[in-house]
Amino acid sequence: MAVTTKATIASFGGKLLKLSHNATTTNCEMNFNLYLPPQAIAHPDKKVPLLIYLSGLTCTAENCSEKGFFQHGASKNGIAVLYPDTSPRGLNIEGEDDAYDFGSGAGFYVDATKAPYDKGYNMYSYVTEELPQTVFAAFREIDSTRVSITGHSMGGHGALTLFLRNPGKYKSVSAFAPITNPVNCPWGQKAFKGYFGEENQEKWKEHDATELVKKWKGPLNVLIDVGTGDNFYKQGQLLPENFEKAAKEAGVTGVNIRYQPDYDHSYYTMATFSDDHVEHAAKYLFA
Amino acid sequence: MAVTTKATIASFGGKLLKLSHNATTTNCEMNFNLYLPPQAIAHPDKKVPLLIYLSGLTCTAENCSEKGFFQHGASKNGIAVLYPDTSPRGLNIEGEDDAYDFGSGAGFYVDATKAPYDKGYNMYSYVTEELPQTVFAAFREIDSTRVSITGHSMGGHGALTLFLRNPGKYKSVSAFAPITNPVNCPWGQKAFKGYFGEENQEKWKEHDATELVKKWKGPLNVLIDVGTGDNFYKQGQLLPENFEKAAKEAGVTGVNIRYQPDYDHSYYTMATFSDDHVEHAAKYLFA
Repeated sequence: MAVTTKATIASFGGKLLKLSHNATTTNCEMNFNLYLPPQAIAHPDKKVPLLIYLSGLTCTAENCSEKGFFQHGASKNGIAVLYPDTSPRGLNIEGEDDAYDFGSGAGFYVDATKAPYDKGYNMYSYVTEELPQTVFAAFREIDSTRVSITGHSMGGHGALTLFLRNPGKYKSVSAFAPITNPVNCPWGQKAFKGYFGEENQEKWKEHDATELVKKWKGPLNVLIDVGTGDNFYKQGQLLPENFEKAAKEAGVTGVNIRYQPDYDHSYYTMATFSDDHVEHAAKYLFA
Repeated sequence: MAVTTKATIASFGGKLLKLSHNATTTNCEMNFNLYLPPQAIAHPDKKVPLLIYLSGLTCTAENCSEKGFFQHGASKNGIAVLYPDTSPRGLNIEGEDDAYDFGSGAGFYVDATKAPYDKGYNMYSYVTEELPQTVFAAFREIDSTRVSITGHSMGGHGALTLFLRNPGKYKSVSAFAPITNPVNCPWGQKAFKGYFGEENQEKWKEHDATELVKKWKGPLNVLIDVGTGDNFYKQGQLLPENFEKAAKEAGVTGVNIRYQPDYDHSYYTMATFSDDHVEHAAKYLFA
């Protein structure tokens, strides 16, 4: 559970910590970043809530820390932000570094059941259990009872599915350009085939937000931003309409999907709307 | 004067344009970015003012566009932001790509007088004349009479010296971690030796903010942020105390240097304080 501090960077009155730990679930050393807002530093006895940000394909903890602008809103509201990595690293599985959309940088927030990826591609357990427990143990200024989740693209899929699979665990969920129906898009099909096997279709559905929302009880209160200039949206990798339709048919309310004119799949979009997503989380974290 | 648009990216309600043009002063194609705030798009007949941001060593127009968060404040205030590159590119001068602090990526906002760099390392003329004229001709929604300037590190040196050498040209100046006394620091000495020659000490002084401020008349109204955790500050590359002392001795008022505790030389610092620098510019651009 020991955490190593690799760098401490002043940011928006708080501190961005570059950290690492030896993770059991993923069988390797994992890097992650943690933003402590000024409120956590000024009053370490008064615990601050936590927003987990899950990154998209090819990313590490660094991309959003540098370009997402979450620290701006987190500093204002007094919320810590946790940026996990997107997969195990260096497991030496043959082919794991060959594609941008499978293997390293592409853990898809599932626990792989198929060899050889079952040896450490357990990003579901890592993000829902091991990493937050590690953070709560090492940083007493963070309140383990107030956690929200958000993410981008593959990380938006992660945020939605982790929230939907664990009622009560997170106070709120939001997403940027999420992959909402992976069983029906090329990215998701490739990943689930590789991590679960082609035959294991029930397992696929257990990690598909559009399938999961059909069983949700009550309002979802999710904020989703999708740019109409997003090429991956146009190519049918995100399919937010499927998610919206499934929610509507199941009577699930509180699904706010904003189609942002011309915005693309990049961090420029996140930077523009991250304040809104932090405010969305704050509404539930401070309720 | 023709400008080629390479990309148009939605950002904070406006548009970040990735542009290029064939520049006469630098003898090559130059890339630059231009942020048009929402006000310029909604009311192209009502001209918006311009803030020029000069980047530091090794950077291109991309770094600050992605990580500086100037678009946040520029969008709010209705200010266009121009991000030039930091040197000519691809002139095929022997050795120009060998060092991070001289040659490509390190134009130092001077017109080189020494061969072979006099063949195109004319970033002073490029940034003060050719590039803004190109922008004003291509973008009628920008007001050529209201321009401010800012920059980081080598670009902070650029902002200060361009402002001090051209009274009345810019409405205001600010800087992050600027090299304020290049004739007395290793970076500046290496650059000026290479671009002007060792013997040409008078030329060196013409591009040294600490020398130039001695001749300034009236208040300077400059905002400067320097992080106390900045390694280049600690190593004596920035020397803001020399600038402050020279200004004081010359009776130049309005020098506001803020020493920001623990902040480093990175874009995390810029992101944190860019709103303040945009507000500083806005005060004079909308006076």
